[in-house]
Amino acid sequence: MAQQLVDQRDMEFVIWEQFDNERFLNGDIYPAFNKKTCDMILKEGRKIAINEVLPTMAESEKVGLEFKDGEVKVPECMKPVFEVLKEGEWGNLAIPEEMGGQGAPDFIASAVAEYLMSANWPLNAYLAMGNGTAAMIQRYGTEEQKKTYVPKLISADWGGTMLLTESSAGSDVGALETTANKNPDGTYTLSGNKIFITNGEHDLCENIIHPVLARVEGAPAGTKGISIFIVPKYFVNDDGSLGDRNDIWCTGIEHKHGIKASATCSMAMGAKGTCIGYLLGEENQGMKIMFNMMNGARMHTGLQALSYASASYLMAVNYARERVQMRELGQPHDAPAVPIINHPDVRRNLLWMKSYLGGLRSFYQYMDYQKEISHHGETDEEKKLANDMFELLTPVIKSYLANKGYDICVQSMQVYAGAGYTNDYLVEQYVRDCKITSIFEGTCGIQAMDLLGRKMGMEGGMVFMAFLGEILKTVNQAKEVESLKDLAERVEKMANKLGEIAAHLGKNAMSPKYKTAFAHSLPYLDVMGDTIMAWMNLWRALVAAQKLEGNPKKKDVSFYDGQIKAAEFFVRTIVPTSMGRMDTIVDFCPAAIDISDDGFGGL
Amino acid sequence: MAQQLVDQRDMEFVIWEQFDNERFLNGDIYPAFNKKTCDMILKEGRKIAINEVLPTMAESEKVGLEFKDGEVKVPECMKPVFEVLKEGEWGNLAIPEEMGGQGAPDFIASAVAEYLMSANWPLNAYLAMGNGTAAMIQRYGTEEQKKTYVPKLISADWGGTMLLTESSAGSDVGALETTANKNPDGTYTLSGNKIFITNGEHDLCENIIHPVLARVEGAPAGTKGISIFIVPKYFVNDDGSLGDRNDIWCTGIEHKHGIKASATCSMAMGAKGTCIGYLLGEENQGMKIMFNMMNGARMHTGLQALSYASASYLMAVNYARERVQMRELGQPHDAPAVPIINHPDVRRNLLWMKSYLGGLRSFYQYMDYQKEISHHGETDEEKKLANDMFELLTPVIKSYLANKGYDICVQSMQVYAGAGYTNDYLVEQYVRDCKITSIFEGTCGIQAMDLLGRKMGMEGGMVFMAFLGEILKTVNQAKEVESLKDLAERVEKMANKLGEIAAHLGKNAMSPKYKTAFAHSLPYLDVMGDTIMAWMNLWRALVAAQKLEGNPKKKDVSFYDGQIKAAEFFVRTIVPTSMGRMDTIVDFCPAAIDISDDGFGGL
Repeated sequence: MAQQLVDQRDMEFVIWEQFDNERFLNGDIYPAFNKKTCDMILKEGRKIAINEVLPTMAESEKVGLEFKDGEVKVPECMKPVFEVLKEGEWGNLAIPEEMGGQGAPDFIASAVAEYLMSANWPLNAYLAMGNGTAAMIQRYGTEEQKKTYVPKLISADWGGTMLLTESSAGSDVGALETTANKNPDGTYTLSGNKIFITNGEHDLCENIIHPVLARVEGAPAGTKGISIFIVPKYFVNDDGSLGDRNDIWCTGIEHKHGIKASATCSMAMGAKGTCIGYLLGEENQGMKIMFNMMNGARMHTGLQALSYASASYLMAVNYARERVQMRELGQPHDAPAVPIINHPDVRRNLLWMKSYLGGLRSFYQYMDYQKEISHHGETDEEKKLANDMFELLTPVIKSYLANKGYDICVQSMQVYAGAGYTNDYLVEQYVRDCKITSIFEGTCGIQAMDLLGRKMGMEGGMVFMAFLGEILKTVNQAKEVESLKDLAERVEKMANKLGEIAAHLGKNAMSPKYKTAFAHSLPYLDVMGDTIMAWMNLWRALVAAQKLEGNPKKKDVSFYDGQIKAAEFFVRTIVPTSMGRMDTIVDFCPAAIDISDDGFGGL
Repeated sequence: MAQQLVDQRDMEFVIWEQFDNERFLNGDIYPAFNKKTCDMILKEGRKIAINEVLPTMAESEKVGLEFKDGEVKVPECMKPVFEVLKEGEWGNLAIPEEMGGQGAPDFIASAVAEYLMSANWPLNAYLAMGNGTAAMIQRYGTEEQKKTYVPKLISADWGGTMLLTESSAGSDVGALETTANKNPDGTYTLSGNKIFITNGEHDLCENIIHPVLARVEGAPAGTKGISIFIVPKYFVNDDGSLGDRNDIWCTGIEHKHGIKASATCSMAMGAKGTCIGYLLGEENQGMKIMFNMMNGARMHTGLQALSYASASYLMAVNYARERVQMRELGQPHDAPAVPIINHPDVRRNLLWMKSYLGGLRSFYQYMDYQKEISHHGETDEEKKLANDMFELLTPVIKSYLANKGYDICVQSMQVYAGAGYTNDYLVEQYVRDCKITSIFEGTCGIQAMDLLGRKMGMEGGMVFMAFLGEILKTVNQAKEVESLKDLAERVEKMANKLGEIAAHLGKNAMSPKYKTAFAHSLPYLDVMGDTIMAWMNLWRALVAAQKLEGNPKKKDVSFYDGQIKAAEFFVRTIVPTSMGRMDTIVDFCPAAIDISDDGFGGL
């Protein structure tokens, strides 16, 4: 039967065959988890996503949210499923047990999240957003704050948010104007307005805990003077029961292109002058505390895009197997019509999607693997390298997955043609929903600045060099396999070229031509992403080729062969295009900087 | 003041400066039109689009259509504006006077249509779709049919449609199952069901004239046995008044990703056994008659995508001038925030859009220019070449404009970031609306098959060679301008390479490897489009460089310089990427054909 949401075989391949995740199991690190437990969790997560969550997706989008008198009502169909997910603790799989979570490894939690997100992302966001708030409090909060907020956030009894953006402070967080004045009792009185607050108000949880970025009177200008406060919707009494309503209100929700069941709220603090917040950490530590959360949010956003792409692709490939239209190319006029998967352009499109999708999933799981090693590696060196690699690649995982995930959704719609443009199929919703991922949690342009301006130069460029070294490890292994030798050599050339343009761009970023360098930062991020895709596809093909030597089952033969074909396709049809793009970065055209503002026209 | 919808200066540049459209004026061809009249029409069209049509766009989308008891109600706000457009005869500018139109040249009608489409495409479609129906009847109908239908269709008193698609006959027209049985009086009784019929039913016109593709009993199988019938919603009495209701009914409308104010109808013919149609032309001539209309529809669809892109770009560039966020790159932390048009990545994005948009508009007007020459050229040779060129490039104009137009809309949203994802701005609607253009009137895949399978080999490939020759003409002229020499040489290389891959692909399309060839047909169409963009950008820069030598006004200096910068950007940052893609077509990877169906996964 046709699979939905996530290709189960592919997920197993990545987790167990491509990455050696078993090394973390069967020992002290995750005593409660072995491969069997993990497989069971994955199976159950898949079942609940398909049977319980997915049926709510179209309806919750269609019904949308109701905003009235400061309150947001989510679609009714979400409520019972939210309870099911909450009771099953599906939202806190990877949260440590000491915080009230399940303590599962990230790789398994991500795999489950890919299912849940693709089945109805807004529902999953309501369920899991408290984790980020809780993690922040766990790390920087007082014992009392931890005790008061963390368990309820982790259990999803209470929701979490992140109040950062203001109308004049989007990408430029330092421009924010929300103020906080210290009261004699040590609390702060907040005043200000925030916009684009995901889940800022809704009726799925009995309380919502808002981390709010604000500026204490007299604090330094810019990001240095930002503090972070815990602002609960309802105050919490000493016995844990809910007290009075705090002076933080939702003043409206956005009407959006997609993710319509996710409440994007405008929030007003201090309309009555009584919005009370509790300082988290110390004054002026706000940015530092928030940045910890940001990495998680960026990974999450990449995964969100991947999950849409995963579900869209499966819909498209299975539609292509069923939809009969036109005779086979080259057959006589009276030949019977065949399923469109037989048509060359449809196959090209499907393999294009498949090769990216496989690459994206492997890349995402590679990041999880690095995170795992950064905590549980054997040596400090191994840990540090993994942590650095994770940091280096975070802007890429966010921006590249968002853009390529979107492209996959769009191409899935193309497979359906006219039918895909209607809302009879979920693909049109995936296209709209996925678009948010290139925008929120830092646009692609912001990620590219982070990559070029901060990450590439980490440890004097040694982290990036180590990254190239990792690619070459796979290349060298693949070269040993006769059938992959040519592909491996091509990937090697690409990685070497990436190294050259990185050096070129890095040098120019610190020269008077820095503006032209940054005008190439997003194209650079993209070709770095392409290189990672080539690497991951080669890696997959390598594993598949090794498995094929072991006489696998018939079904596995076509699976493994599919990995090799995807790698061949990617390396031969996408890599050279990307290499051409790399040439343009070396050519370093300054036109975008040189053109006068008026030259853009439209005046 | 910021411009809306279409950059007026750019439009004038293309029509009068890049293309020598004045050669058709001031003489016998269009006696009623000179440059002044044309400019006046353009000015009025622009005014009406901005002041009357544009204000209906968001509302008509939001209100949408109401379907009840077989009738479709369009949003109320459309109705008065429809009357204004109808009275001003804005829908029939380019229709010959003998048919009741204005007899204006295509280039000016297209320019006005770009304004109207970008202001509310569905409204324009209701207004102008009768033209296609009328043109068909004018060419193939009897004198009586012409007299009965053409004037009312052209005046937009009656609407027109095209009933082609059925649920099992989309791209595969030959599979259609609607039947027609000849009656003793020479009429036919039709029976069948059609889907995805644009404007199949609505309440803006008192009658709707449906051309319907159907199969007469006993006709040959496939496309050879298809006939076309005129099926009026209401029969027309001899005195021109409306008679009984015909047995053709709207049974439902699609709920869609975008263009929500455009009725996409399911149509049932013969529910009561009394659907009467009048044969147009002769039996089994249906495909031939329809194909004439199809070229027009493909041009129209390209223009539709261009118009969305045009409006989106203007919104984005003007938003970028106003939206203040972050200090200038390289300035100290306490430097003031600046409009985002100052940020390198935003500039790159804007110039990326601008260079494509300029290229697309020039390409479109080039097609109009060829059409004009095909009718009014000086020699038969010139006429034939222009006609051939138009035929060759029709699949490219449809598919390439659809895809790049969409990309521009998506990137415009990116400039707005979070705000662009809300429906506070029209960009999010443009993104959704534009997606239809890669789907209807033949998907991109279908266009690519047409290009490789039919068009490339026209006249033994001589038409394509002539096309390359046209590019080289511009190249040679540009080489004479010192500042453009390098760009010209790069475009020359690209055109030569396109010639090589075309030969490679053409040869393989007729070999046993034809499936792999067709798996490269859409990438080929894309690189051919890229080459046209490079050519058009170079051409624009050439004209601009020549104008700059004549000491233009200050405002024109920045405009012309903008063209040169756009060409520099396109040739240096997009051409090499496209050249890389050309390499992949030569490499000719067969993986998409070789992979087993199961290898795509998801089973």
